[in-house]
Amino acid sequence: MTPAASAEVEVANRRLYEALEGADVDAMAAVWDDGDPEGLVCVHPGWPMLRGRGEVLRSFAAIMANSTYLQFFLTDVQVCGTGSEEGMTAVVTCTENILTGATLSAAGAEGGPVVATNVFQRRAGRWRLRVHHASPVLGEL
Amino acid sequence: MTPAASAEVEVANRRLYEALEGADVDAMAAVWDDGDPEGLVCVHPGWPMLRGRGEVLRSFAAIMANSTYLQFFLTDVQVCGTGSEEGMTAVVTCTENILTGATLSAAGAEGGPVVATNVFQRRAGRWRLRVHHASPVLGEL
Repeated sequence: MTPAASAEVEVANRRLYEALEGADVDAMAAVWDDGDPEGLVCVHPGWPMLRGRGEVLRSFAAIMANSTYLQFFLTDVQVCGTGSEEGMTAVVTCTENILTGATLSAAGAEGGPVVATNVFQRRAGRWRLRVHHASPVLGEL
Repeated sequence: MTPAASAEVEVANRRLYEALEGADVDAMAAVWDDGDPEGLVCVHPGWPMLRGRGEVLRSFAAIMANSTYLQFFLTDVQVCGTGSEEGMTAVVTCTENILTGATLSAAGAEGGPVVATNVFQRRAGRWRLRVHHASPVLGEL
């Protein structure tokens, strides 16, 4: 994947977290693919697998409604893909360092890092999110 | 993706779990892509993200060495991909219901279900694993 294509995927990935930070339901709906609604998959940290556009978007709306403050610092971001032609897939893996209202009032009291795999597909000239899998890093191993 | 191609991806996915069940390090090495060693990514349930073929294979060797018994019943398996030409990507999402020596001796005492996202890439006529992301489902939400 060319550096330009890779940067474009990274921008699409960043949009997911900006939608969450802004509690913007419309922006979140635009991030996710709308061509194959049943194929979408989402795992929030510690949650079971949610399938389908309706269920996925409702879960984000619920998270946004229940978060007073949410900020993501992404580290260890890696983009992987073979090209950016229509239908191609790109995978972003990263660590989400999350700052919430809770962590602000009691730093370190909750929320360790979360690791995420985000799968995008190129459709109609845009990278659309098809799979978001986030999971908690549970202390020492 | 055609049903035949989809079935082929599902067989590749099954091989990952068979390698673990058989504690077969060579089979596990064959499951993972060897074309771009640094690009491989693996998240075990509750673990941070491991990157690179060496680190990933060593982690599986350690898990195999520390498990007396491991059996996987996969449910809710979904294969998603656009084609099976060279370089194409296919994504398997599924729930891993895991039976271990520990759960055998004290059923339910450990190990709830795990949800997984597995990303395969077609290379030299085979589907090779590039990303394995597994995460624990942590009780009621």
